[in-house]
Amino acid sequence: MDLALGDIANLVGGQLNGDAGIPISGAAIIRDANAGDITLADKAQLANQLADCRAAAVLVPPDVTPDGLPFVTVSNVHASFAKIVEHFRRDAGNQPYGVSAAAHISQSAKLGRDVVVYPTATIGDDVHIGEGSIIHPGVHILPGSRIGHNVTLFPNVVLYENTVIGNRVIIHAGAVIGAYGFGYKTVEGRHKLSAQLGYVTVGDDVEIGAGTTIDRGTYGATSIGEGTKIDNLVMIAHNCRIGRHNLLCSQVGIAGSSTTGDYVVMAGQVGLRDHIEIGDRAILGAKSGVMNSVPSDSVYLGYPATADREQMQKQAALAKLPEMRRQFKALQKQVAALAEKLNDAA
Amino acid sequence: MDLALGDIANLVGGQLNGDAGIPISGAAIIRDANAGDITLADKAQLANQLADCRAAAVLVPPDVTPDGLPFVTVSNVHASFAKIVEHFRRDAGNQPYGVSAAAHISQSAKLGRDVVVYPTATIGDDVHIGEGSIIHPGVHILPGSRIGHNVTLFPNVVLYENTVIGNRVIIHAGAVIGAYGFGYKTVEGRHKLSAQLGYVTVGDDVEIGAGTTIDRGTYGATSIGEGTKIDNLVMIAHNCRIGRHNLLCSQVGIAGSSTTGDYVVMAGQVGLRDHIEIGDRAILGAKSGVMNSVPSDSVYLGYPATADREQMQKQAALAKLPEMRRQFKALQKQVAALAEKLNDAA
Amino acid sequence: MDLALGDIANLVGGQLNGDAGIPISGAAIIRDANAGDITLADKAQLANQLADCRAAAVLVPPDVTPDGLPFVTVSNVHASFAKIVEHFRRDAGNQPYGVSAAAHISQSAKLGRDVVVYPTATIGDDVHIGEGSIIHPGVHILPGSRIGHNVTLFPNVVLYENTVIGNRVIIHAGAVIGAYGFGYKTVEGRHKLSAQLGYVTVGDDVEIGAGTTIDRGTYGATSIGEGTKIDNLVMIAHNCRIGRHNLLCSQVGIAGSSTTGDYVVMAGQVGLRDHIEIGDRAILGAKSGVMNSVPSDSVYLGYPATADREQMQKQAALAKLPEMRRQFKALQKQVAALAEKLNDAA
Repeated sequence: MDLALGDIANLVGGQLNGDAGIPISGAAIIRDANAGDITLADKAQLANQLADCRAAAVLVPPDVTPDGLPFVTVSNVHASFAKIVEHFRRDAGNQPYGVSAAAHISQSAKLGRDVVVYPTATIGDDVHIGEGSIIHPGVHILPGSRIGHNVTLFPNVVLYENTVIGNRVIIHAGAVIGAYGFGYKTVEGRHKLSAQLGYVTVGDDVEIGAGTTIDRGTYGATSIGEGTKIDNLVMIAHNCRIGRHNLLCSQVGIAGSSTTGDYVVMAGQVGLRDHIEIGDRAILGAKSGVMNSVPSDSVYLGYPATADREQMQKQAALAKLPEMRRQFKALQKQVAALAEKLNDAA
Repeated sequence: MDLALGDIANLVGGQLNGDAGIPISGAAIIRDANAGDITLADKAQLANQLADCRAAAVLVPPDVTPDGLPFVTVSNVHASFAKIVEHFRRDAGNQPYGVSAAAHISQSAKLGRDVVVYPTATIGDDVHIGEGSIIHPGVHILPGSRIGHNVTLFPNVVLYENTVIGNRVIIHAGAVIGAYGFGYKTVEGRHKLSAQLGYVTVGDDVEIGAGTTIDRGTYGATSIGEGTKIDNLVMIAHNCRIGRHNLLCSQVGIAGSSTTGDYVVMAGQVGLRDHIEIGDRAILGAKSGVMNSVPSDSVYLGYPATADREQMQKQAALAKLPEMRRQFKALQKQVAALAEKLNDAA
Repeated sequence: MDLALGDIANLVGGQLNGDAGIPISGAAIIRDANAGDITLADKAQLANQLADCRAAAVLVPPDVTPDGLPFVTVSNVHASFAKIVEHFRRDAGNQPYGVSAAAHISQSAKLGRDVVVYPTATIGDDVHIGEGSIIHPGVHILPGSRIGHNVTLFPNVVLYENTVIGNRVIIHAGAVIGAYGFGYKTVEGRHKLSAQLGYVTVGDDVEIGAGTTIDRGTYGATSIGEGTKIDNLVMIAHNCRIGRHNLLCSQVGIAGSSTTGDYVVMAGQVGLRDHIEIGDRAILGAKSGVMNSVPSDSVYLGYPATADREQMQKQAALAKLPEMRRQFKALQKQVAALAEKLNDAA
């Protein structure tokens, strides 16, 4: 399965700079490359790292000219490198697969053309699944759900009743869409669950990470806007309305009924309280605890979260506080001495 | 499936104020309501929002009189609105279901009357399940577990060996009860797992959210008290003893052997260290990092968490710190000038 | 199933101090022990708690001599107590089990001797599983994965394509290994997923907690070093390289391409940004937000995380800030008065 470096240049339509006969036995990033591998450097700043790298050759964009290593120049480094990696990857034998007889599919469910359903998946009454969608093993789709076309549900995804999934959506293993919202009313010392009549709607081209949970609305929808990408272990509570093209990183938690605009970015472990609004294109820094609505086009940080400039001033002042405290005590003494001196003088 | 507004008033036993013939085609909260929907306003402060709402009518309690919108007055707005939503919800065809032949049930397991078991669930040796409980697809109950009556285990819930579940408990999809505790002893550079002989007990009327994990005790029980409600993606470690009627919000983490009293509330993303005690009715604010025991009837915030008043004073002082720092430098200069002046005068 | 205390002393090879005929009906930790139980006290400081404990006897190490309670002295308290607990535990009837006919195993998969596969597990094309490994129900292993010997995969674990698992690894229920990394490039307002050609490698003797997610590398491996233990609901992003014998507590999140040395410890809810390096034996305190690389043998705390001494000084200064603020205002007044006095004098 080895290739000569010249073959690799041909494979990606790149320009070879070095010996076309060098044998290449694999492809890996700089950190991981072994002798015989080809690696990639997508910017000139990686030159230092390349010098220490054991790779036999490197794939580069036109503006990078590596020192002392054969290289292949291409216009799109990442797409070309992916092509090379795919060549070396052992074929896992993913064969086309139809609808398994060992899946459990309600007679009232409707499956489009070329739908794939693996063994042990269960599909409830009145579920519709669009053309070309793939339902992995252990996926459970409860009654009344609607799935678009070319959707992939990885193993053990659970969709509760009446979930609505758009087209080209990817949901990773173990994600749970549509569980009950965490809403209670305390009556005579006992917490009574609120109505759980709602559901979840997920727009086209959304991706949802492994183990993420999105709860149903109380009466209507909790909704995720088109093109939004959600990482692993994120929690989105009941009645939230997430806008389009958001990026929500891992372990973010959003409490009930909060909303976001379009192109919002939340870094890892951010927490939002309930019933607040995050404006378009707002960016929330890692681990922020957001207690109030955030205006559009702003960057918020910290806990409690504030505008980034304010937060950085606070943090800078805090870092100098121990020294300032010592200086303050010295100043107190100096003033006391001055006061005494002035008294003596009077 | 449309109803006239008069029919809706009859359905909920409410008093109509407006044209009984107005056609109503759906029900949604104010934010989401479309033309033709009925909405609800449970307090007078929502008047502004109602003015901008596209709903054709609104359901209200006796003390709310909306302006310019037909309304139906009822004593319990939420219960009545739920009834209306249910009317409009398409019937998902949830039919009564027995014990599936495609479930895998040990011959030594005992199932009560009217137990439902869906395909692909597995039930281990010597498991007992009480009357009327529902075991969804992909649920795996390991040997020796005891489940009360009228329990619902949603898809892909896992109960490890000897788990004890009370009556009327609801456990949401993907929750894992009884995995090994994270306890190690390091011997000659290798971490050795502690004994894993314990189990988990869950009291009556407990609800556990999607993806939540509760680890078994070392020798005995990790326990969750009666009536406690736990949100999604919460982590409760080995040997913890959670009291009754607690509310633990999403992504809370409680380290080993910590305990809580009754009616404790933890907001989202709170973290507790190991071996501490949280008193009855204590409230822990969102994202608090709790490093010490917390007395009953107190409110704790922040990281490290302190009593709320103390924390708010700290935060207020911190917010003003950058300004205070500037003033402090000015004061230093002023004092230096005074000292010089006094020296000159002497 | 009751035992006399003398029989218990024999069972664990311990020295009895008290009446050999005392009937013992169970074993529990001090907090949970009932009348008739034997308990354990592994250090002298527990004497107070023992005084309030209802246990009938106690197991102790040689350097502990409890007051007023019959006791059995042994050299290894925990191993001996485990033996006693096991005696009293009802046998859950875990029978030896082969490969279930109700599992779904590709014809090209290879299973070693004594492998156990429970019903509803699915094993993809070209998967290899080593001798003595146990595959619980609802586990889904996608094509091309390699599993070592004596591995346990608890129910509903998902391994994506080409995952590599070492020997004696334990993965708890619901963990997801190898989902797509959260890497996007935004082109004309749409987030395009990066290449997902990599996989995950897990070293020998690693343990992974319930609901934990580890994403695949972009082109190559995300790797977990030998002997590392990972708690529940931890997130490890794409391209990370975790060293050997780390301890990563619950709800830790590590962003893409970050690396750790050996024997690193992260307490609960720690967050690491992407592309940083944590040195050998570094300790990161609970809830730390780590924004920069951390040197070996250091302890870091806080958010943003700093060396522990620095952080504790900051926190101590912050705790005194409200008082310092009052003193500062008083000092400002005093200085103003002095200045006036000096002016008057001039």
